[in-house]
Amino acid sequence: MENNYALYLVTDTGICPRENLLTCVEEAILGGVTMVQLREKEISSRDFYEEAAALKKITHKYQVPLIINDRLDIMLAVDADGLHIGQSDIPASVARRLIGGNKILGLSAGNLSAAQQAKLDGADYLGVGAVFPTATKQDAKFIGTETLKEIKKAVALPIVGIGGIKKENIDALYGSGIDGVAVVSAIMGSDDPRSAAVNLRACVKNF
Amino acid sequence: MENNYALYLVTDTGICPRENLLTCVEEAILGGVTMVQLREKEISSRDFYEEAAALKKITHKYQVPLIINDRLDIMLAVDADGLHIGQSDIPASVARRLIGGNKILGLSAGNLSAAQQAKLDGADYLGVGAVFPTATKQDAKFIGTETLKEIKKAVALPIVGIGGIKKENIDALYGSGIDGVAVVSAIMGSDDPRSAAVNLRACVKNF
Repeated sequence: MENNYALYLVTDTGICPRENLLTCVEEAILGGVTMVQLREKEISSRDFYEEAAALKKITHKYQVPLIINDRLDIMLAVDADGLHIGQSDIPASVARRLIGGNKILGLSAGNLSAAQQAKLDGADYLGVGAVFPTATKQDAKFIGTETLKEIKKAVALPIVGIGGIKKENIDALYGSGIDGVAVVSAIMGSDDPRSAAVNLRACVKNF
Repeated sequence: MENNYALYLVTDTGICPRENLLTCVEEAILGGVTMVQLREKEISSRDFYEEAAALKKITHKYQVPLIINDRLDIMLAVDADGLHIGQSDIPASVARRLIGGNKILGLSAGNLSAAQQAKLDGADYLGVGAVFPTATKQDAKFIGTETLKEIKKAVALPIVGIGGIKKENIDALYGSGIDGVAVVSAIMGSDDPRSAAVNLRACVKNF
């Protein structure tokens, strides 16, 4: 399984109801999504586990890596491909020790020093944002494309831009050098996630 | 470190505010608590991790095992002594595989067949209840002391009664054969957790 960060889908059951999640993700993969992150907050551990196990069957059918947000226990329990953690999750160095060297560890970074620290902490890739203002994560700090470019230049890791990215603004990212874009609403919020993914994927070139 | 289930404290930051948690637990241990379970629901993974790490320093100072409720990731991250899971957590067999054979695995059981299944799933002890009606877990089914006795007779595991147990009703458990009592409010809700523990411990004899 290749780690292709080009079009990275982050789920949100606030946008796409839980009962539609598997269908939505499968459609998105068929449309060109290259990586999937399952993000759940208000859910029991059992339900999260069941959902992750079901989603893994789909992602693996298409050889797309499945990353679990925050919950290292769920990641281990379903043997997902990786873990994505932020500042309010367990420390990255602890996570790396517990998941081992063969799993993907993604870290969130909102500025250059956080990105540099994340590399030291053993990240395999960085989610950097919020690139544009976003309704999905209203507390996210808006960083703009210049910081994205600066981080990509300074930190030798795959960089995925996240936050408010959509077909209409993606061209602002050309020249930033990033490795891919992560989207939530632009796919999960679409009536036709497959077409949404096709359209976005067509815009994902060499940034 | 000995696994003594006699007086098993389960934390609840709804009853004892988070800023008082460490002091409250230390006082309770000084009063005679023999095992501590950290239970947190509405908290970030980072805060749960920090709290568990701080609590472990206290429990280990007194050679009292620390059990983490639900969150296997937190248990692994702080290398706690065990994990307690219920029906809405990850499956017990998966948990046992991930924590290994040397950690304590506690399971909740509300009836005889659940208790028998829990033994098959690899439990080291069972939390059985709710023995008495309880305000802490209002959705808990009240099982009464006869079921407790029946489970203790049928299942060869340490059995800890839980749910509404206090000094005033603990004598109803004599003759049940259980190995200990788990309490939340009776200690966490007291102005003087040490005295509360002393008084309860004095009632914990051979059930």
